[in-house]
Amino acid sequence: MNVEIFETKERLLADNDSEAEKTRLKLRESGTFFVNLMGSPGAGKTSVLLRLLPLLSGSCRIGVMEADVDSDVDAKTIAGTGTKVIQLHTGGLCHMDADMTSRALQRFGTDGLDLIFLENIGNLVCPAEFDVGADLRLMILSVPEGDDKPLKYPLMFTVSDVLLVNKTDTAPIFDFDMERLTSHVHALNPDMKIFPVSAKTGEGFEAVASYFKSRIQERRKGR
Amino acid sequence: MNVEIFETKERLLADNDSEAEKTRLKLRESGTFFVNLMGSPGAGKTSVLLRLLPLLSGSCRIGVMEADVDSDVDAKTIAGTGTKVIQLHTGGLCHMDADMTSRALQRFGTDGLDLIFLENIGNLVCPAEFDVGADLRLMILSVPEGDDKPLKYPLMFTVSDVLLVNKTDTAPIFDFDMERLTSHVHALNPDMKIFPVSAKTGEGFEAVASYFKSRIQERRKGR
Repeated sequence: MNVEIFETKERLLADNDSEAEKTRLKLRESGTFFVNLMGSPGAGKTSVLLRLLPLLSGSCRIGVMEADVDSDVDAKTIAGTGTKVIQLHTGGLCHMDADMTSRALQRFGTDGLDLIFLENIGNLVCPAEFDVGADLRLMILSVPEGDDKPLKYPLMFTVSDVLLVNKTDTAPIFDFDMERLTSHVHALNPDMKIFPVSAKTGEGFEAVASYFKSRIQERRKGR
Repeated sequence: MNVEIFETKERLLADNDSEAEKTRLKLRESGTFFVNLMGSPGAGKTSVLLRLLPLLSGSCRIGVMEADVDSDVDAKTIAGTGTKVIQLHTGGLCHMDADMTSRALQRFGTDGLDLIFLENIGNLVCPAEFDVGADLRLMILSVPEGDDKPLKYPLMFTVSDVLLVNKTDTAPIFDFDMERLTSHVHALNPDMKIFPVSAKTGEGFEAVASYFKSRIQERRKGR
């Protein structure tokens, strides 16, 4: 006898992708550029935002959605800069998916915003699997994590568009080889843009801010 | 009309716990102490093993199971020490569960081993949710990740028994306060044992090795 087979996981992922596409189109129509920020625990996701926000806030209106399993420490930090912010709690879940993100954006209110960052859960595995509807997937790897990480978490490096290598000020004390990293990254993702930065010293952020400004400019022109 | 409701997730977790308990009892009967080693990407899980193995290999027979999403770099590193090792691939999955672990142990072969380490996937969220049947959950946090991590990944700090704080040699260049960390950790888990170590310099590992030796001794005596 034949029975119906229901592929739960595939169905869920297909649903996720169509929901993500809806989010992307909706934000494009309103001229908002949406960034999914991912990285390990402690890679410096919030610290990078603290450096970027002042460099961008003069030329565009920014919103930050901070996803966390439980706490609100990051949202409080961002709120201290005067940026519009919301804390999202995933209730133990290890990533944001498209449906959660769509509901979060609705609650947050995106009217009048040119740029929205979603700081995802600190995790190099699960967030890579879920398109949340962002225009850009921004990954942060920090020097102390090591230059071999593309070998061990390949999907994250494959799906991301831009990589910030943070904590470059600590490179002398860690055995970290930027050329080795770049070669591992480009073997997986030849188009990946790589910016070395230090959220501690501020080094490298002018280049990142210029990149974002030109992407937001393109969005305003409807490209 | 009433329909049957099948709680997939709860069922899976209940199954996981009973499978984990079977593994634990089986290894106890054969006098093997089983450790589930967890931490972020780049926290230093493999480097910690490289320091611990020579301190323990004189007094007990050790096996290492290296779980990874895709690569085999860690297993090759461990194999270089002459320790019995197997590489496990989770096929993209972000954690090891009890069933995967039980099948891995069977394939690995545990006869004659006093101590087995499972190096879990680098992730502070998902591995905390799955009992794999270990006697001890050993967590590694590295100094560059920051002393606020218990606030953001509370479950991992709650379920672990022992915390190694690695890369203490870099404490001067990071804004890391061991007292603040200890207070956050003990608020979640008052019984957590904390060992500061540096896999780079070797500092602190004698104390960790002594702790393991006494735990293995207890196991041999059937406690």
